[in-house]
Amino acid sequence: MSTDLASAINHQVRLAARPLGLPRDGDWRFTEEPVALPDEGGVLVRATHLSLDPAMRGWMNEGKSYIAPVGIGEVMRAGGIGVVVASKNPAFAVGDKVSGTLGVQTYCLVPAGHIGRSGLARIDTKLGSDTQWLNVLGMPGMTGYFGLMDIGQPKPGETVVVSGAAGAVGQTVGQLAKIKGCRVVGIAGGADKCRFVVDELGFDACIDYKAGSVRDGLKQHCPGGVDIYFDNVGGEILDTVLTRINRKARIVICGAISQYNATAPVQGPKNYLSLLVNRARMEGVVVFDYAERYPAAIAELAGYLKDGRMKSREDVVKGLASFPAALLRLFDGGNFGKLVLDVSG
Amino acid sequence: MSTDLASAINHQVRLAARPLGLPRDGDWRFTEEPVALPDEGGVLVRATHLSLDPAMRGWMNEGKSYIAPVGIGEVMRAGGIGVVVASKNPAFAVGDKVSGTLGVQTYCLVPAGHIGRSGLARIDTKLGSDTQWLNVLGMPGMTGYFGLMDIGQPKPGETVVVSGAAGAVGQTVGQLAKIKGCRVVGIAGGADKCRFVVDELGFDACIDYKAGSVRDGLKQHCPGGVDIYFDNVGGEILDTVLTRINRKARIVICGAISQYNATAPVQGPKNYLSLLVNRARMEGVVVFDYAERYPAAIAELAGYLKDGRMKSREDVVKGLASFPAALLRLFDGGNFGKLVLDVSG
Repeated sequence: MSTDLASAINHQVRLAARPLGLPRDGDWRFTEEPVALPDEGGVLVRATHLSLDPAMRGWMNEGKSYIAPVGIGEVMRAGGIGVVVASKNPAFAVGDKVSGTLGVQTYCLVPAGHIGRSGLARIDTKLGSDTQWLNVLGMPGMTGYFGLMDIGQPKPGETVVVSGAAGAVGQTVGQLAKIKGCRVVGIAGGADKCRFVVDELGFDACIDYKAGSVRDGLKQHCPGGVDIYFDNVGGEILDTVLTRINRKARIVICGAISQYNATAPVQGPKNYLSLLVNRARMEGVVVFDYAERYPAAIAELAGYLKDGRMKSREDVVKGLASFPAALLRLFDGGNFGKLVLDVSG
Repeated sequence: MSTDLASAINHQVRLAARPLGLPRDGDWRFTEEPVALPDEGGVLVRATHLSLDPAMRGWMNEGKSYIAPVGIGEVMRAGGIGVVVASKNPAFAVGDKVSGTLGVQTYCLVPAGHIGRSGLARIDTKLGSDTQWLNVLGMPGMTGYFGLMDIGQPKPGETVVVSGAAGAVGQTVGQLAKIKGCRVVGIAGGADKCRFVVDELGFDACIDYKAGSVRDGLKQHCPGGVDIYFDNVGGEILDTVLTRINRKARIVICGAISQYNATAPVQGPKNYLSLLVNRARMEGVVVFDYAERYPAAIAELAGYLKDGRMKSREDVVKGLASFPAALLRLFDGGNFGKLVLDVSG
């Protein structure tokens, strides 16, 4: 153990209260404590980059979900990339780059019994940068990959619509659907994002929901209807797409960012009977179900990154102190690409 | 041609106006005209029993659906059973019992080019009665069969919930799910129907939505959650079941009778994000997609009728003139079992 580590301080962001609507500063508490060293089988990781995700908002709520809520007073959950700085586990050596559920903190002690639960795994830095490992090669990429491939089941020539197209999941979904031979139309907020989605990511079109009618955009850009809708946003956009789906369409429910901070009851998709008329399917995807298949998906996506068929854009914010404000950018549309918190400084 | 037929009159019910909300008497027009005889390849059928279905309400609306709306002035669409009384088609002989889309009328002339479209087919009267051919062996039975088996995909030991449990589709779904080894809980309106569903049809339990809380009923009768929900009703019941589904649950959207006469916008399932949390699926079923497989399904269901494992209940109303009032009973919960109009008199 280095003398540096002996005096190192772990800076943490803890959940202080369950927010109503958008999280506020008072919902967070900043703490610091001396870094603890691993016992037998454990690993200590110094975080470099943390992933900021819409799903975090759900983890802050009480109640049954696909994962337990973060407890009041606990370090906020977050995926991240880091470097092993101390290890009593033969699978990890000091200096290894790793990914896993590190939490919103600068050091993460992973005890032996939590290695699996935290998903701690060495990453191959030749396949992508730290931030790409939180984007295309990380949870958003895996979510997009399995949501599109397993639930969407794209066939060449089909039309795929993706909301949140400039976001982390949307990027992967749209580019992957293009690679699989589909016509791909994004939905995003603002001319800059739409330009990026078409010019940089190569979508066939992108509808700016802030500038005009999504319905008109779909009529214009999906004249043959919609075969797959990958939904990251819910709300009115979901309802509008439901009016344009084809027979046997697949709607992948990945998220509903328009609803996560709602204080009124969630608005259900009032056009859901389009599923009946069109014998269509709406199905939810939770990435953790596919953990065994991450390596194969990562290998495939890393190949596309390498040959240039897939691009990635990350929006990097510096410093743990920026966490509360940065998180809000996910919900006001302020971020552009995968939102990452750089805590390496 | 018999002299009887030469002077026979076809009594018809035509759609006079598109209803707002519940159909009213003024939305129908009764007409009569001399019976016309078939040209080459055509068949003339005298109807004995007509099927009254919730789907009829949808056919009365303008707009894109899985089937064209009935035109103003046209004979109302209806499936039915009848007897061939004149035939210039070698596949049909006078005296044959047939099923098909006969319309709400006492005679149906099926021209050569419409035989396929009307689904005209001889029925085997040994397999079931006329009214059973409109119930378990007819469209409701086929809808229940393929909705449950292909979309629901029941596995032994799973819990299946069926709304409209005493109705035509619900009867088949619940009994078939029992035969396939599932625990089956119905939802129906009123003590009589619930008693019938449990005592006669053999469901494990039935929740009376008119008498108490569906949520409490589901907690009591589905302690292990819901694996398959076969939804005939939509609305609040769908929303409530969504809170009780298990991982990888399947929700079969067969109908939404609570919404068919709504003059306000349909209420979407506000708990649809349960599909995400539970990686569950919601999918619509339209029976016509399975036409090629009807014979096999009919053979299987007829076997259950014969060996007593499946029962059927039909609610028979007499006379074409009763059509407008009888149809309304589908929407006020007044019918009990498959609603059939006997026009043989």
